Amino acid sequence: MKEKYSIVTIHMVSSIDGFIAKKDGDVSWMKSSDHFDKGIELTNEIIAGFLDKIDCYVMGSKTYEDALKLGWPYGHKPVYVLTERNLVDERETVHFHNEDPSFLINDKLRRQFQNIWMVGGSQLTKAFLQHNLADEIIVTWMPIILGDGMLFFDFIGKEIPLHLKEVTAFKDGMVELTYDILRD
Amino acid sequence: MKEKYSIVTIHMVSSIDGFIAKKDGDVSWMKSSDHFDKGIELTNEIIAGFLDKIDCYVMGSKTYEDALKLGWPYGHKPVYVLTERNLVDERETVHFHNEDPSFLINDKLRRQFQNIWMVGGSQLTKAFLQHNLADEIIVTWMPIILGDGMLFFDFIGKEIPLHLKEVTAFKDGMVELTYDILRD
Repeated sequence: MKEKYSIVTIHMVSSIDGFIAKKDGDVSWMKSSDHFDKGIELTNEIIAGFLDKIDCYVMGSKTYEDALKLGWPYGHKPVYVLTERNLVDERETVHFHNEDPSFLINDKLRRQFQNIWMVGGSQLTKAFLQHNLADEIIVTWMPIILGDGMLFFDFIGKEIPLHLKEVTAFKDGMVELTYDILRD
Repeated sequence: MKEKYSIVTIHMVSSIDGFIAKKDGDVSWMKSSDHFDKGIELTNEIIAGFLDKIDCYVMGSKTYEDALKLGWPYGHKPVYVLTERNLVDERETVHFHNEDPSFLINDKLRRQFQNIWMVGGSQLTKAFLQHNLADEIIVTWMPIILGDGMLFFDFIGKEIPLHLKEVTAFKDGMVELTYDILRD
C-alpha cells in the first residue's frame, strides 16, 4: 500500500480586524457585497472542484453547532468534532472525540486521510498552532472591519514563520492568502 | 485657486494574527525572509516613487519615538505627532499637536495637503476609524504569526464596510491590500 502524505490545513474567514464571529452571532457579514474588478469569479464549479479535494473536516463544538444551524456545508464528508461536551449525533458522517487533538490528528486522521481541513474555531486554532498540528493555513479576508467579536488568532503565544504560497482575489472583494506553516 | 481633494490613508504593517508590535519591542520580524515567486520586486525606485506621493504624515507619540530610534523613514516631509506629552522637537519637520484628531485632520491638514498618511499606532487608528477621519486603509500582511503583542485594530467597536481596490503581493511574501473606507 502506498504511503499517504497528509496535509492538515487551517481554514478561516476573517474580517480585516481579525474577527471570525460577531458577538451577536450575526453572520450576514460573511456574504460580501463588494465588487473587485480584477478578482476572479467564484463559480459553483470552482467551489465544487475545490471541496472535492477535501477528505475530512475537523472542528470544535461551536463551529459544529453553527454549521447545523446555518446549513450543513460539509456534504457527505467525514466530520470530526473535538469536544468534551455530550452532543447529539445528528448525522451519520459526524464523529465526536474528546481526546487530545495531537492524538486525533497524528495517530488517527493522518493515517486515513490525505487532505484534512480544520475549520475552527479560535480555541482549536490555538491548540493546532501551539502543538504544530497544521501544515498550511488559508486566511480569507473579508472586506469589512467588524469592530468587535471573537478573534481568529487569540494571542496564541508562539511565533511561527509562514511561507506565502498563493494569493487569490475574488470578484466580491474577498482575498484568500495561502501559507505554509514553517516548523522550527 | 483650485480646490484640493484630500485623501487620508491609514497605513500599517501587521502580522497575520493582527499585531503591529511585539511585546519586547523587537522589530526584526518586519523584515521578511520569505520568497514568493509570483510577487513583484520592491525596488528602491518603486519605494521612492511611492513615498514621493505622500504629502505629510500623522502619527502617535510612540510611533514617532520608534521612528527616531529605528532610523527616520519620513525624509523631509512634514510630520504631525498627536500627543498630550511634552516631547522634544528633534527635527524641523516635526509638529506636535495635542488637539482633537478631527480638528487637526479636517480643519488643518485637509486644507493644506492632498495625500495625508496616518502611520500608527493602535490608539490613533482607533480614533481615526471611530471618528470617520480616514478615506483609505492599506494593510500590509507580513508572512508571520507573532503570537502576542499590540493589536493593529484594537476592538474599535464599530462596523465599517470596506471596498477592495488593490492587491499587491511582493517577492518577499508581503501582501498589501488597499481598501476604500465606506461611510454610512
